Amino acid sequence: MAEIVPASHLDLLERPLFAHVATIRADGTPQVTPIWYLWENGVLALTTTTRRAKYRQMVADPHVSLSLHDPDQPYRYLEVRGTVASILPDPTGGFFFTLAGRYGLDVGQRTLEDAPFRVKVTIEPTKATWQ
Amino acid sequence: MAEIVPASHLDLLERPLFAHVATIRADGTPQVTPIWYLWENGVLALTTTTRRAKYRQMVADPHVSLSLHDPDQPYRYLEVRGTVASILPDPTGGFFFTLAGRYGLDVGQRTLEDAPFRVKVTIEPTKATWQ
Repeated sequence: MAEIVPASHLDLLERPLFAHVATIRADGTPQVTPIWYLWENGVLALTTTTRRAKYRQMVADPHVSLSLHDPDQPYRYLEVRGTVASILPDPTGGFFFTLAGRYGLDVGQRTLEDAPFRVKVTIEPTKATWQ
Repeated sequence: MAEIVPASHLDLLERPLFAHVATIRADGTPQVTPIWYLWENGVLALTTTTRRAKYRQMVADPHVSLSLHDPDQPYRYLEVRGTVASILPDPTGGFFFTLAGRYGLDVGQRTLEDAPFRVKVTIEPTKATWQ
């Protein structure tokens, strides 16, 4: 996917920034919310639960788009459009804890109440725009 | 609109933060890009030009959503869904310069090359979610 996201902006995916992910609601209108992500093996990996609107929307329509900007240079941004490539159960919350660690959130020995509903979603980039 | 956006999160609209605005592309997939805004008289006012995909998308489908988080407390966020209420020509770029000032961008005596195509777009909130 290196050819979709330019090398000049790959750092935005590698750094633990907050992306704003847009999904399509059942009535065709957009939803957009901030989210954690991990850029690995050419896909963007996200955590959510099967109880969230975002999950239902991605199942019904796999087209998504993520926007993020560099907090140190706010006019430097990246939009990655893509499609949901996989949704895998994460019943121990293992991928949630991976992301929590990446984002420096101290979750200690916390048990994840919504672990039974956790899923790991991967997004395959199809197009990027940037500035 | 005070009843749509809670008082606890109004500061996010009043501060010059970057919102990520989602629009619907002609093929039904979402676009999301960072944008300046001004919260005035219960609407969100944006600047764009008639040459931008975002403009064409908002004309074709007035449903949009904006997401923003507090850079000082990243888990504090607000999503504002809404519809395009007005699109007015801004041929002197006056509203662009208002926003540039709000965001502390020194545009000096610059002439705005795309001024003939500038428009001021207002979004009327219909629903908000927050954390």
